[in-house]
Amino acid sequence: MLEKLRAEVCKANLDLVCKGLVIETWGNASGVDRARGLMVIKPSGVPYDGMQPKHMVVVSLKTGKAVEGKLRPSSDTDTHLVLYRAFPMIGGIVHTHSRYATAWAQAQRGLPTYGTTQADYWYGDVPCTRPLTPAEIKSDYETNTGRVIVETFNKRDPMQHPAVLVASHGPFTWGKNVVEAVHNAGVLEFVAQLASETLRINPKLKPLPSALLDQHFLRKHGPKATYGQR
Amino acid sequence: MLEKLRAEVCKANLDLVCKGLVIETWGNASGVDRARGLMVIKPSGVPYDGMQPKHMVVVSLKTGKAVEGKLRPSSDTDTHLVLYRAFPMIGGIVHTHSRYATAWAQAQRGLPTYGTTQADYWYGDVPCTRPLTPAEIKSDYETNTGRVIVETFNKRDPMQHPAVLVASHGPFTWGKNVVEAVHNAGVLEFVAQLASETLRINPKLKPLPSALLDQHFLRKHGPKATYGQR
Amino acid sequence: MLEKLRAEVCKANLDLVCKGLVIETWGNASGVDRARGLMVIKPSGVPYDGMQPKHMVVVSLKTGKAVEGKLRPSSDTDTHLVLYRAFPMIGGIVHTHSRYATAWAQAQRGLPTYGTTQADYWYGDVPCTRPLTPAEIKSDYETNTGRVIVETFNKRDPMQHPAVLVASHGPFTWGKNVVEAVHNAGVLEFVAQLASETLRINPKLKPLPSALLDQHFLRKHGPKATYGQR
Amino acid sequence: MLEKLRAEVCKANLDLVCKGLVIETWGNASGVDRARGLMVIKPSGVPYDGMQPKHMVVVSLKTGKAVEGKLRPSSDTDTHLVLYRAFPMIGGIVHTHSRYATAWAQAQRGLPTYGTTQADYWYGDVPCTRPLTPAEIKSDYETNTGRVIVETFNKRDPMQHPAVLVASHGPFTWGKNVVEAVHNAGVLEFVAQLASETLRINPKLKPLPSALLDQHFLRKHGPKATYGQR
Repeated sequence: MLEKLRAEVCKANLDLVCKGLVIETWGNASGVDRARGLMVIKPSGVPYDGMQPKHMVVVSLKTGKAVEGKLRPSSDTDTHLVLYRAFPMIGGIVHTHSRYATAWAQAQRGLPTYGTTQADYWYGDVPCTRPLTPAEIKSDYETNTGRVIVETFNKRDPMQHPAVLVASHGPFTWGKNVVEAVHNAGVLEFVAQLASETLRINPKLKPLPSALLDQHFLRKHGPKATYGQR
Repeated sequence: MLEKLRAEVCKANLDLVCKGLVIETWGNASGVDRARGLMVIKPSGVPYDGMQPKHMVVVSLKTGKAVEGKLRPSSDTDTHLVLYRAFPMIGGIVHTHSRYATAWAQAQRGLPTYGTTQADYWYGDVPCTRPLTPAEIKSDYETNTGRVIVETFNKRDPMQHPAVLVASHGPFTWGKNVVEAVHNAGVLEFVAQLASETLRINPKLKPLPSALLDQHFLRKHGPKATYGQR
Repeated sequence: MLEKLRAEVCKANLDLVCKGLVIETWGNASGVDRARGLMVIKPSGVPYDGMQPKHMVVVSLKTGKAVEGKLRPSSDTDTHLVLYRAFPMIGGIVHTHSRYATAWAQAQRGLPTYGTTQADYWYGDVPCTRPLTPAEIKSDYETNTGRVIVETFNKRDPMQHPAVLVASHGPFTWGKNVVEAVHNAGVLEFVAQLASETLRINPKLKPLPSALLDQHFLRKHGPKATYGQR
Repeated sequence: MLEKLRAEVCKANLDLVCKGLVIETWGNASGVDRARGLMVIKPSGVPYDGMQPKHMVVVSLKTGKAVEGKLRPSSDTDTHLVLYRAFPMIGGIVHTHSRYATAWAQAQRGLPTYGTTQADYWYGDVPCTRPLTPAEIKSDYETNTGRVIVETFNKRDPMQHPAVLVASHGPFTWGKNVVEAVHNAGVLEFVAQLASETLRINPKLKPLPSALLDQHFLRKHGPKATYGQR
């Protein structure tokens, strides 16, 4: 079942490798079928070479159990489940260890809005979570990783900030489907590199003024968008 | 109409992608036909894959309206128009979000003339604009972006400094035609990377002395140029 | 003899070039046959282009002498021998001058555990050796390089920290066989780059708390591992 | 005439592009025939695409005049001539604007010997020239560039330090022939990047102790070399 979604999720995982966002087996992409309450996700620790749609694992959003597929789902499955449950608008999630976004996550710093490239996609910063407590790490680690992401979005709209940096770990991105989540993973890596290079030139730089943030984000998103074709 | 210019502008847009200066749809190139008072520019938000000359949009230099083409012109069209009107010698314009040039733009710093690589193309620095005011952002943003560029060239010859960094945004380059504008976009990215790497080794470095700047710029440009073939 | 191991070691040396970890002739990989007490290693200073299994040199673990092969073994042969003798669990060794790992070695700094990417492979830091003394350099340099590595692992398990940075020189990695040693050389280079980029964003960053280190390392290694497929 | 040398010099120029050391027309390679007193060098400002041996220009070492070839020789011809005259052991010269080496030249800093990668090729530092005086720039600039390089090697053997950084400009490398000069240009760029990355991790690092420098340089060079095959 879910042949189309399996194919999309498989392609999304392979696209992450093509885009240089994932090396080895360090990343995963998933997509969700809201009507059926099912998530399709990459299997755990399987090489990308030869990966096919049939290898994807189908997991119940409700129970968190695999309902189809012979392989174990990604070790980050529980994190994806928490996000799908908490953010009803999202249809796809991507996790990578891409170089620059991971460096910011390791540095435990969110990405300030240093320029319009970021403002075209994020309505402000890319937040970084707080560190997990030892208790949160020792028990239900992957679920707690999801929970600390949700906590971070307490006052942010996940569709206006489609990414998070998990402290000491790396980025998660999402979108209305898995294709958009992959796209946002690439954009995030680009703006993370821009932010690193910018910071080195001007370490005291302040984020964009709100007028410029509004102008760029709202030019591409929401009811008054003018970017692109009608 | 303007088949040749359409083809040149289309190729210029694709060349930006090939050279790694543009990812996604983040860039645009245009060319102008001064005799007819028409500008040819990339359509807004259209994927590069499959882009053809017929997709280019023809815009009147005078009215700013599209006079041919079914697609909306680039969202930066008004900026291009201001530049063509203010700088009568230029025949092509390129805008990118290339990594290093954009980092300097975000840092709100012009590129000092740190070496002869830059002096071979720029007769001094690559200036950065002042930030736009909230009022300039909220109304006629793209036109005001062009105006602040022109203001920055108050005391500079645009043919001797064929690029600008728009604060918090990214670079615009130009040339006698769109091919030269693309060339200058690549050179700018290279010298921006050189400047970043140089600054990290010697943060207190002063710009080139004027004798060396003269020697290199005038060796390649102007009536006494000796570089290249006769 | 040792046809299979020769082929593996030859391929490992070529893989280092493909992965961008070795340029010119600056690197070497070896594998060991514990039952026979023989090591297979790359010849010294031979171009990678056209390298074949028959060019590999077979060296006695006990005597350190070449027992088969017409070419001189790698100039780092004696270092490999010391490591195979001291670390009985390892089956393959790789030495490179890869960019980021070598920069840390030159800086004479071990890689702190800044994130989970490293914790998935190392149970803590990647140590850097002390500098060799002039006496250790002037006599038996390559053997002493091995000895200072062994000294560095006095209180570390080499299977839980499968790499070392030799001060002023570069990295050595190892694994249960030469394929794993090559894999670890690639992972090391990646985490070295991550550490460099992280340090620049947050120069005062502390290493991971032990709970997070345990969670990630033990999720992938040891009797309670849950990562990957059963 | 000099068909073989023309072919070698042409290939050397193209190799610089393949290795990523030269973009646009920013570089040149030459070779010398000492017996005939002739230098073969790239023409000035000619695109690499389609460059052939017949386009190379033959210049007299004695008079500095082109004796064969319809094209103007490289604008850096006079610098090459000074070096061939002053350094009788060298047979090939390369000039590039490669990223990291040029950044050090712009920063007006020589490359300290931070590690054994450099010590395998340089018997110590890669020196940077003093800046030229305004008078030296205004008259006979290219010849004076050569002279300031020679001045820098007052107390250094050019065969033990086969490269120089010309302040505010970029690197020149050489070797016993043009193939070796190209090789050294690639090694220089690599060690320049290593030095930049090292400096950022440990800004207070001292150069290698002399024992380690001796061990590595003399292992590969001179009468007691043991590296490579007999």
